[in-house]
Amino acid sequence: MTPQPTPWLEPFERAMSRDRPNPRVQVATVSPDGLPTLRTVVLRGLLGDGTPWFHTDARSRKVDHLDSERPHLAMLAWFEATQQQFRLTGRGVVHGEGATEPWAAVRRSAWSRLTPENRLPFFGPPPGRRYVEPVEPSSLEAPPQPFVVVALEVDEVDWLRLGPPHQRASFRKVGATWLVQQLTP
Amino acid sequence: MTPQPTPWLEPFERAMSRDRPNPRVQVATVSPDGLPTLRTVVLRGLLGDGTPWFHTDARSRKVDHLDSERPHLAMLAWFEATQQQFRLTGRGVVHGEGATEPWAAVRRSAWSRLTPENRLPFFGPPPGRRYVEPVEPSSLEAPPQPFVVVALEVDEVDWLRLGPPHQRASFRKVGATWLVQQLTP
Repeated sequence: MTPQPTPWLEPFERAMSRDRPNPRVQVATVSPDGLPTLRTVVLRGLLGDGTPWFHTDARSRKVDHLDSERPHLAMLAWFEATQQQFRLTGRGVVHGEGATEPWAAVRRSAWSRLTPENRLPFFGPPPGRRYVEPVEPSSLEAPPQPFVVVALEVDEVDWLRLGPPHQRASFRKVGATWLVQQLTP
Repeated sequence: MTPQPTPWLEPFERAMSRDRPNPRVQVATVSPDGLPTLRTVVLRGLLGDGTPWFHTDARSRKVDHLDSERPHLAMLAWFEATQQQFRLTGRGVVHGEGATEPWAAVRRSAWSRLTPENRLPFFGPPPGRRYVEPVEPSSLEAPPQPFVVVALEVDEVDWLRLGPPHQRASFRKVGATWLVQQLTP
């Protein structure tokens, strides 16, 4: 095992740059009943130190799941162009209206990039509940309370490149360093 | 709510037929520590009644996770061609050497369709552990003990079609019937 500074970040960004800038990724949480749940989100960016983030509706089930007792979040990114899979696990942190910097700025900036059509649902009824007809809001300017950014504070990465031969490695954060180990694919 | 017989199956098979016959899907389990974990697998088929299945290595972590106390398994299938997402949840059942019909036949047939290259890892060291050089087996004919089929006995489906407008519905099995409900996307 060899300690290194965020050694998975550069390969991740390189794979992403050869695919698409905002890839669809899957994220998994655990419900209060202990059930795994997963869904697709758009990976909006990585903060400088390699913290991936996406935005979502605070009223969605995945945000319900991320409470202080059970903040566990897993993310899977598959990059077709280079046949690489990154599985990132760690702590999911929800940054909403009361967010401090740098996340308050990330949230404002994310909102400013959304089209009116994509802003509308955050003013509508809660997602994933019984359908009700949405009501037109008076203004779409400011991000409403349900618009939140979710950051994944990564502490473990499993990397796989399909071959032949397949290659696989794990990256595990221990204190301030990362341990790297080659695995059987 | 309207009771119906497996109402999500026909839309699922139709979406799959317009994409690729063996799509890559994501499956999530929960570790004994309560952590969500997810990975990509190839969906190999659906048994007649709509039971999706894939094959894997019995020594992989996802099979470790699927024990009698915590058999929960979630699967996400995204069909690009028709912009539809199906999220299936239920009980994961592992069918190995001692499998009864129809799963014993499914397992034999799945093995027979694998190339020699794809059979080899099942005779090698356990996946996801420290890398060791594999040893060439004497024969690849019969499926070895680590080759297992995992069936997902579905009891809930969340369906989403990206629009505009987005559409979403849930299908929930209650006894022998399915309850269908339109949801806010």
